[in-house]
Amino acid sequence: MAETIFSKIIRGEIPCHKVYEDAHVLALLDIFPLSHGHTLVIPKEAAATLDQLSDEASAAVGRVLPRLVRAVLAASGAKACNILQNNGELAHQAVMHVHFHIIPKFAGGSVDTGTSGDAGGLGEGLGIGWKAGTLDGARGAALAQAIAARLG
Amino acid sequence: MAETIFSKIIRGEIPCHKVYEDAHVLALLDIFPLSHGHTLVIPKEAAATLDQLSDEASAAVGRVLPRLVRAVLAASGAKACNILQNNGELAHQAVMHVHFHIIPKFAGGSVDTGTSGDAGGLGEGLGIGWKAGTLDGARGAALAQAIAARLG
Repeated sequence: MAETIFSKIIRGEIPCHKVYEDAHVLALLDIFPLSHGHTLVIPKEAAATLDQLSDEASAAVGRVLPRLVRAVLAASGAKACNILQNNGELAHQAVMHVHFHIIPKFAGGSVDTGTSGDAGGLGEGLGIGWKAGTLDGARGAALAQAIAARLG
Repeated sequence: MAETIFSKIIRGEIPCHKVYEDAHVLALLDIFPLSHGHTLVIPKEAAATLDQLSDEASAAVGRVLPRLVRAVLAASGAKACNILQNNGELAHQAVMHVHFHIIPKFAGGSVDTGTSGDAGGLGEGLGIGWKAGTLDGARGAALAQAIAARLG
């Protein structure tokens, strides 16, 4: 895997606003936050995308997410948040080392505009475009079987 | 916690297009997919939001995510995907039982419009609105400390 800025942060070669660290996981503030409290959760294991991450590293991230979400909500004052993890440039992934975003969501804009450098303050969090279709029964059954068959 | 449709699906009282099941996790197709292969990963433990989920249940979800992502990508033909988990109605959560979305992302629309009931076929996946600010150094240090202090 190519070296990324997260490898350097994990090794301590680049400073960060660290929130949490254990043997498998590092959590830090995103320096380009979508909202107050925007936090990144990174497995120390180097993998570009989630499909390439080991089960153990992914479990370690999962294990710490509830605690981190509680702490981010408490410290930011948010009552809601989105967890987002992008795989592939097409899916909006910018750094090719697996990372989960914890993005607090605010109703009327972020509570602390002091963390923002732009004139309008931080936005309210992640924007979500949701254009859903419907799943046909027969096609759904075939697709579920096709996915299950690949779980091996 | 209030009863949800996912509780009934987990107990087998409502049918679903099941993709995967173990002692702690159920994965199934979303019947209102954003793209071909849109899959839900649900901890069997009943918790409305991620901050209320046990570490163990969240770790179990994390552990199976890489395998599920590989299978969904392989079966759908997608090369990219987003993982999204919403907490709170404000953050676009519709069913008040923790669930992770695996949403394949396609460049030019979904490859299989047969899973869609609408005229235009399925969309290309999750729409992401990303209006980032910047994090001031001093504020960032204080905020990181405030979050870390709440990790207990």
